[in-house]
Parts: sequence; structure tokens; C-alpha cells
Amino acid sequence: MYPKKIPVIIVFSLIFTLNLSAQQNNDIDKDAFFIRSIYDEALINGQAFDWLNYLTQRIGGRLSGSPQAAAAVEYTRQELLRLGLDTVYLQECMVPHWVRGEKEQVRIINSSKLGSVDLSALALGNSVGTGPSGLTAEVIEVKSLDEVDSLGEEISGKIVFYNRPMDPRQINTFHAYGGAVDQRGTGPSRASKYGAVAAIVRSMTNRSDDIPHTGATVNDERYPFIPSVAISTNDADLLGDLLKEERVRVYIRTTCENLPPVKSYNVIGEIKGSQHPEEIILVGGHLDSWDVGTGAHDDGAGCVHAMDVLQVIKRLDYRPKRTIRCVLFMNEENGLMGGRTYQKVSFENEEYHMAAIESDRGGFTPRGFSCEGDPSIFNEKFAKVLKWLPLLESYGLNFSTGGSGADISGLKPQKGLLFGFVPDSQRYFDYHHTPIDGLDVVNKRELQLGVASITSLVYLLDKYGI
Amino acid sequence: MYPKKIPVIIVFSLIFTLNLSAQQNNDIDKDAFFIRSIYDEALINGQAFDWLNYLTQRIGGRLSGSPQAAAAVEYTRQELLRLGLDTVYLQECMVPHWVRGEKEQVRIINSSKLGSVDLSALALGNSVGTGPSGLTAEVIEVKSLDEVDSLGEEISGKIVFYNRPMDPRQINTFHAYGGAVDQRGTGPSRASKYGAVAAIVRSMTNRSDDIPHTGATVNDERYPFIPSVAISTNDADLLGDLLKEERVRVYIRTTCENLPPVKSYNVIGEIKGSQHPEEIILVGGHLDSWDVGTGAHDDGAGCVHAMDVLQVIKRLDYRPKRTIRCVLFMNEENGLMGGRTYQKVSFENEEYHMAAIESDRGGFTPRGFSCEGDPSIFNEKFAKVLKWLPLLESYGLNFSTGGSGADISGLKPQKGLLFGFVPDSQRYFDYHHTPIDGLDVVNKRELQLGVASITSLVYLLDKYGI
Repeated sequence: MYPKKIPVIIVFSLIFTLNLSAQQNNDIDKDAFFIRSIYDEALINGQAFDWLNYLTQRIGGRLSGSPQAAAAVEYTRQELLRLGLDTVYLQECMVPHWVRGEKEQVRIINSSKLGSVDLSALALGNSVGTGPSGLTAEVIEVKSLDEVDSLGEEISGKIVFYNRPMDPRQINTFHAYGGAVDQRGTGPSRASKYGAVAAIVRSMTNRSDDIPHTGATVNDERYPFIPSVAISTNDADLLGDLLKEERVRVYIRTTCENLPPVKSYNVIGEIKGSQHPEEIILVGGHLDSWDVGTGAHDDGAGCVHAMDVLQVIKRLDYRPKRTIRCVLFMNEENGLMGGRTYQKVSFENEEYHMAAIESDRGGFTPRGFSCEGDPSIFNEKFAKVLKWLPLLESYGLNFSTGGSGADISGLKPQKGLLFGFVPDSQRYFDYHHTPIDGLDVVNKRELQLGVASITSLVYLLDKYGI
Repeated sequence: MYPKKIPVIIVFSLIFTLNLSAQQNNDIDKDAFFIRSIYDEALINGQAFDWLNYLTQRIGGRLSGSPQAAAAVEYTRQELLRLGLDTVYLQECMVPHWVRGEKEQVRIINSSKLGSVDLSALALGNSVGTGPSGLTAEVIEVKSLDEVDSLGEEISGKIVFYNRPMDPRQINTFHAYGGAVDQRGTGPSRASKYGAVAAIVRSMTNRSDDIPHTGATVNDERYPFIPSVAISTNDADLLGDLLKEERVRVYIRTTCENLPPVKSYNVIGEIKGSQHPEEIILVGGHLDSWDVGTGAHDDGAGCVHAMDVLQVIKRLDYRPKRTIRCVLFMNEENGLMGGRTYQKVSFENEEYHMAAIESDRGGFTPRGFSCEGDPSIFNEKFAKVLKWLPLLESYGLNFSTGGSGADISGLKPQKGLLFGFVPDSQRYFDYHHTPIDGLDVVNKRELQLGVASITSLVYLLDKYGI
């Protein structure tokens, strides 16, 4: 567009401030001023993007048990140390060690219409390999786990192909993901129950493209573990169309393996509270990522968000009343052992997380926070949080009820509030669990605005408590 | 993240519905249902992205007066015809015909520190060329037009270098753009007033990179026209740093020219209103773009938004009471002759635009609409619009007061409401007026959500009037 100044003044921001006393208005002014300084600091001096650059470009994909995961632990530990926090330490946890092995081969064999066609595929995390000789079987397409149940023994000896797309009508793409991901998470085991020899899953994305999306599958111990792969949406459409016309046999070769668990760590840094050190406000993301790509949005972004929250607090010389703790969880992707270990230790130590905020939905433009908590306290505490809305909505933030994050949701019995950072969701599943989840698809300003949003919430939680 | 369904329920959506009658609630239910069908249609069958693919990949950059601009006129006319509208026609307008000429050369000459360094540059639209032999002069850096005024004759014979960055603290990047773009728009003429021989302008972006951003400069007829270029932000920093240490001479060679005006067109298609055909609801964008890049976000996105609004209305078999008119304006970038011609004809024909919506801020995730109007009617009419908020905010939309769009703002005396479509602004100035404003930086879902947002507003405007 042409040079033209476009002032955009958000209306409605002050709905909640109408009946406040002078003292309250004074506090609101001070808070507005401080939150503005948080945004300025994060936008001008934030380090999140630089840290993410190192994590993605210098270290790379950080699957649990890999050398890169170890490097990420050591790198973030050192960086947290440089911030001058009160404590920086590692929390040991044992994590699964799955390795992808050689490049996957998934091939339509001798189709009468197409001949042989290589499909774009990635093995699913935790899945077993076919071994070097691969396997070949007839493919049967299903749209749901229920359909597998109703087909029953009919799928015995076959490769079950889950091909239900994510629903494009869902505005929030996480809802569409939630409505489709059972195919990947428990689909292979369900197929194995009835004798399937392998599973193929349509990639979890709304896009039509050639990029396969990996992700974890859960091996149900009651049934044989079967090789499982994801194929790109374009190839899923191709295979689905072909199955309408003819019987199709597919060759799958994967050499992935589940090796013995290895020792790894959550990385933790904290600023001790000056008045209520026993009340913890956690900010976190997960440090592990898939091996393909470099885990920029998932979840490098969440880690550098959390680290930069502490950096901004330090730079602004803000002395928190409560303990602000940054936790970079290991193994969220394929086992959650970091989150589980953290929770176990926390309960053993009788800790109280007054609030915990996880960022694990990418580094996109902030839209707000989802919030959950124990039903016995939720409504009352959430109502207090909602009073802060006038301070945050001019930055495009809102609060909603909903899930927080996989690593922190187990803290609910401590009866604090659990938040999930909610950025714009439209592009997340373009990159999620793929080779293209890299630094070049992260926008620096969007990432740094995330830091500012989370720091602002931490500030209000610390100042007022809940 | 790991497979986990995350229900996120937006709260607050129903603030405005508390005291409504049963009839009103019934209408709201119907409206909510219809708006949902608009979103479904736009997300599943929308054509905006396909049209944008053609405009960018098959036609390319569409600067006024270029063959590509003519192709864009003919292409969009044909596509609108295929929609089965009541009228499709071209509206003639004369447009400036500026051509860039050969690749620009901008070079630091014989710096004692750096030697000679080529800078990444683009001539500013409307600017004159240096001619084939180029020019060399000493550079003087300024941060504002006021500084030029105070330097006065000191800049005579020199190249004035405007190097004030966009303010990174502005959350809405258009505010930062509005606060810096005077340097490009009127900076060169102001420098010429005091005898400068050329102007260099820091590119209008928050990013630090090597990509120059072109854009129009306004030639003030009172002073000699001087060659003017934009350089990338990295090179602006380099040049600024060098000027702190030594006197710097720069060589500039541009062969751009202002050729005689040529005939071009606005492209217009409309659905006649069944009850109030004289009340017009305009949706539009501008068809021209800069010659570098392919004008995907600026403003191919706005054009295909507007076209798809009419397509969605037709597909849903919605029969509007009022006239819905799609206008693709020519020459927004360097003259506004399409917009001016449209306004002139509209006033001559005594038309009444009850509302006009321009999309010219890119194809990113929708955040809402800015709104302006004649002060005599604005508050009353805007209050009516605000009552629709409960229907729109669950889609992430809000209303604000502020500018609408360059092509439509002249319609204000008709006393309708003028809207600007407001998408997320964070990435817009990464691409704006550059070689990288192409299809690959447009996300299909974000684009189609824009269509749904605008169509929903058009529906409410049409159904209820203002």
C-alpha cells in the first residue's frame, strides 16, 4: 500500500475498568506502564530468536536420547547460567531412545494403473522397523478406529491405511488435529489387535503437499508392535484414489528401533521469590524435538520463550515476590518422561505451583492463554485472572478455558492454575513434525511478542497472586 | 506436541447477548448458522488461493502501465464473468507509467575502511533516473525531514541518506510504517528543496536483512526531481556506521523513467440488490503491484479476497438485498488514479456506498476491521456495527476505529461506513514492496479465512443495513 498513516485504536479495552476506585486505577496505570516496558524490552533486547538460531542451526533436531538432545541440555544450561539466576540445575530422568534408522521406503507395487510409485514417508516415533528385508502386503483403507473394530479379522495380514483428513472447517487447527490424531496415536495398535502387519497414517496437516509428518505412536503392550509410517497428504490422496479402482499392494521398509532407555535431563533455572519463595510460577517448553527438521516451532520456540521471560525479568531489574522457574522439559514428544519426573519430584517435595505456563504451540503471533485447573478452585481463581484482561487485550491477548500443556497438566492436584500459551494456529501444522520445521519459518517479531505476552502474565501472577 | 486434544472455548463471546428478546436471539442463531456456513464454504471451496496463484505465478508483478497490469485486468474480468454476476465491466482510467529500467547500482566509493562496496538497492517508484553515466556525491545522513530543514544549504550538492528505522516497539507494524514512511514519500523532494542531488532511503521494514523495499515517492513540482533509491536495512546500518568514521562518497546509477500516462482500468463486478439496489456495499483491493516480486500480499491478496467474497455469496445462493460490488482498483501504488476515477464517477452518478471494505494489508490471519466515516454519522452507525461483535469475535475478529483504505477513503462524503480489513500485521513488512512478496509467503488457510471474515461482514451489512 501507499504511504499513509493508519491509526488503529482498539475499542472495548476498558470494559472492566469502569467501576474502579482511584487506587485501583493508579495500580492499573502502573501495571500498564510496566507491561509496556516488558514489550519494549522483549522487542528490542529479547534473545529468544538468537537462542533459537543456535538450537536449530548449530544443534539441530533433538530427539530424546540423541547427541543433539544432550547438546541442547548443555547449551541451555550454560545460557541460563549467564542470566545470573539464583539457581540453575539439571533434573535427571530416564528417556526412551528411539532411532529412525535408514531412510524409509514405502512403495506402491505393480499397480495396474500406476506401476510402482514411491510414497513420501516417515516412520512413526516409537514404532518398530520392518527390518532390512521390508514387508509387502495388501492395503486396506479406513477412516477411523471404529471402522477397524467393525472390520475385525478382515484386516488380518494387511496394511491398515488410516486416511481421515484433519477437518479444514475448524478455525483453530489444534481442534482439527485433536480430531484426527487418534489415527496416529493409537491407530497402529488397534490395527495390530486384529492382525494387521503394518500401518500407514495420513499426515496430520491441513495442507495438500508432499511432506510427511512424523509423530509418536503408542505401542499397546497387549498386541504385537507393527511397523507404522506416515505418508504425505498428496500421497494419501493418491493411494486413497487408487484403492477405489484396484487392489493395491505396498512395500514398506523401515529400520527404526527402540534402544534401551538413556539418562537425560530437564533443565531448570529460577529466580527465588523475595516474599513467597514457596509459591512457584513455572514457565516452560520442551527441549526435545523430532529428529527430522530442527524443532524450531515444536518446541524450540517454547524453550526460548521461557528462557527469555527470565532474561527480560532480570534486565528490567524486577524482583519477583514469588519464585519464577524456567523448566525445559525433556522427552515430551515420545514418552513425556521429563514432565512425569518433574511432577513426581515436585509432589515429593510438597511444592506448590501457584501457576504454570507451557508454550508448546509454536512461535506465532500471540492470541492469549488457555487455562485449566482443579475444579474445586478453577472458577474462583480464573475469575481473578480475567480481571487482568484490560491490561492485555490491547496486545491482542485473550483468555480461554482449555488444556495447558502435556508437561505441566499433571500439576493440577497442587491446585494452582495451569496455562497454555496460545499463538495463532493457522501455520503450525504446516511444519509440525516435519523436515521443514526450521528457523526460516519462524518470524522474529512473532516469537519475541510471545516472550512479552508470557512475561506480562508472569508479572501479573507474581504481583497479585491468585 | 504429543497427541492430545485441546479444547479451547472462547469465553466472553456472549457479553452483548444478555438482554435480548427471543426474536433477537432467534435472529442471532440464524446469523451464527449462516456465518458458520460462510466459513465452511470459504475454507473448503474458496478460490482465492488459486486465483492468487495465477496472478502471481502466471502474470507476475503488475505495475501500472505494464503488460502484466493489462493481463491482470483481462484475467480478473474473465474470472468475474465466470461467477455469473449481474454485471462485469471495466472502468477506464489514465495511469502513470513509470519503468524501473536497468538494475540499479548503488556503491560506496573508495572508503578508506571498506574500499568499494555495492549496496542492495531499488529505485523508488516515480523517481527519475541518474541516466547511464550515474552520479557520485558525498553522503549526509539524516533521521528526519526536520533535520533536512535545519541543515538547509549544507546538503546542497550531496546525497541525503534518510536512516530512521521503523520503531520496533510498535505492536502494529503499520503504526511503525506510518511513523517512518515520510522519509520515502516526501523525503527526496524535501532534500531537493535544499539542493541535494539524490536521496537514499532506509528500507521500510523491521527486519535486519539484505532485501531492499521499493515504494512510491512523491515528486513535488516546486523542486527539481532527483534520483532516489531505497537500500536494505543491513546496508543502511553499514552506511550509517561508516559515516560515523569517515566522509563517504556513493555512486548511484538508475535508468528509471516516467513515460507518458497510459489507459488502464478498474475491474468491477456486481450482484444487484433485490430490495435496495441503490445501496452499494463495495469490497475491493488493488490490482496493480510493484514490478519487483509478484505482489502476492500487496495486493493480490486483497483482490482475490474481494473476488472470493462474491463467489462465496453465489455458491451459498444468498440473494443480497443490497448491491454487492467487487472493485479491483488500478494504480494504488504510484498514483491512486483508479481510486480517484472510481470516486469521481461515483459522485457524478450520485451513488450511495452504504459501506465499502478494502483489503490492502495482506493475506494474513484475520484480526478484524478498522472503520471510519464522516463525523456527522460515524458514532451512530459504528454503534450498530459493534452490535454484531458477538457473532464475529469467536472467529478472532474485532472492530477498531481507524483508516480504511487508500482507494475508498474518498467515498466518505457519501456518509456510509468505510472499513479496512485488518489481518495480523507482524509479517507484512517483511515482504512489502520486495522481490520476495510471492505466493510462497502466503498461507492458504490464512488467506481463505480473510475471505470468510469479509464475507461475514458483508452479509451482516446487507441483512441489517446501517
